Amino acid sequence: MTTELETGLPSVRQIQNLIRDGNEVELKLVTGDLLAGKISWQDNHCISLTDQYDQPTIVWRQAIVYLKPRL
Amino acid sequence: MTTELETGLPSVRQIQNLIRDGNEVELKLVTGDLLAGKISWQDNHCISLTDQYDQPTIVWRQAIVYLKPRL
Amino acid sequence: MTTELETGLPSVRQIQNLIRDGNEVELKLVTGDLLAGKISWQDNHCISLTDQYDQPTIVWRQAIVYLKPRL
Amino acid sequence: MTTELETGLPSVRQIQNLIRDGNEVELKLVTGDLLAGKISWQDNHCISLTDQYDQPTIVWRQAIVYLKPRL
Amino acid sequence: MTTELETGLPSVRQIQNLIRDGNEVELKLVTGDLLAGKISWQDNHCISLTDQYDQPTIVWRQAIVYLKPRL
Amino acid sequence: MTTELETGLPSVRQIQNLIRDGNEVELKLVTGDLLAGKISWQDNHCISLTDQYDQPTIVWRQAIVYLKPRL
Repeated sequence: MTTELETGLPSVRQIQNLIRDGNEVELKLVTGDLLAGKISWQDNHCISLTDQYDQPTIVWRQAIVYLKPRL
Repeated sequence: MTTELETGLPSVRQIQNLIRDGNEVELKLVTGDLLAGKISWQDNHCISLTDQYDQPTIVWRQAIVYLKPRL
Repeated sequence: MTTELETGLPSVRQIQNLIRDGNEVELKLVTGDLLAGKISWQDNHCISLTDQYDQPTIVWRQAIVYLKPRL
Repeated sequence: MTTELETGLPSVRQIQNLIRDGNEVELKLVTGDLLAGKISWQDNHCISLTDQYDQPTIVWRQAIVYLKPRL
Repeated sequence: MTTELETGLPSVRQIQNLIRDGNEVELKLVTGDLLAGKISWQDNHCISLTDQYDQPTIVWRQAIVYLKPRL
Repeated sequence: MTTELETGLPSVRQIQNLIRDGNEVELKLVTGDLLAGKISWQDNHCISLTDQYDQPTIVWRQAIVYLKPRL
């Protein structure tokens, strides 16, 4: 029993685009931490970030404050 | 499968007005951060803010404390 | 598709009374901020506060800790 | 359209008892604030506390960390 | 109208075992507080802790970060 | 009445893999705490971590910010 990602939502689609294009992003978290990396996948609970050393960090959506594409 | 924005709600409509009119707003976030910019879109999870350098920031609704139109 | 305010709830009704009577309130927020003003409207997501300079602040319910009528 | 309080739950019933018996309680909140008073009512969103000067404070449940009956 | 505890979940069952066996636990809360005591009951909203002086503290689940059985 | 884990979700499956393989992980929590250990089980509410002294810590999902496999 799996709830589908709501791919009609702009926020979900923009994250899909960032995954597809391999853009760097910054994620600000509720603890004040700022993570940088590329998004490798998203589901209803989490977004996974891969840093410059190719290490994954699974971030819970509930803990995300904002996301900024890096320039 | 997409949940529609509840456009009958005053808070959703006021944000739609702010988008349409291109008003500057301030967003206070749970981390204490204060972001300023124009709202470019909203969905059920997020509100996207564009700053004076035309850079987008996707803010999660769960992290918003208050929104103030700038004067 | 709009979810109605649960006007049978004491908390919703007391806020309706504060709106009708134009009482000053204090709102304590999760960031520790304390806002003062009159409530102009409420919906399922937000409460809007108008300060003494007639400036509105849209406060997200999720960020409210307590509300105190001012005396 | 009103959602009933789940009066079968121990937490809801214990709060009903504290209201009926007029016991003093302490409420610890997510901001670290500690409020003291008697509970005057509860609903699905809020608990209302009356302090020693008979002033009400409407506390949002989402912001409550713990409740301690005072001795 | 009462929602049953999901007693099939490992987390719910482990807490039931801690209640039955009268084990001491530590609860870390979102405020950073660390409470110690024995769990006397749980429901869908709260967990009640009894300290060494037999005083109860009703802790909201939303405010719990982790639980550690004491050794 | 038990809600099944959504085993179709990448985040749930990756945690299942970490359990199966006995990998060390780091969990960053909303309090800023960083816990390290092996995941022994997960359910819809919690993830249980076992540290190097074989002591369990039941972590509530709502309090998790991110998870990093240790290298």
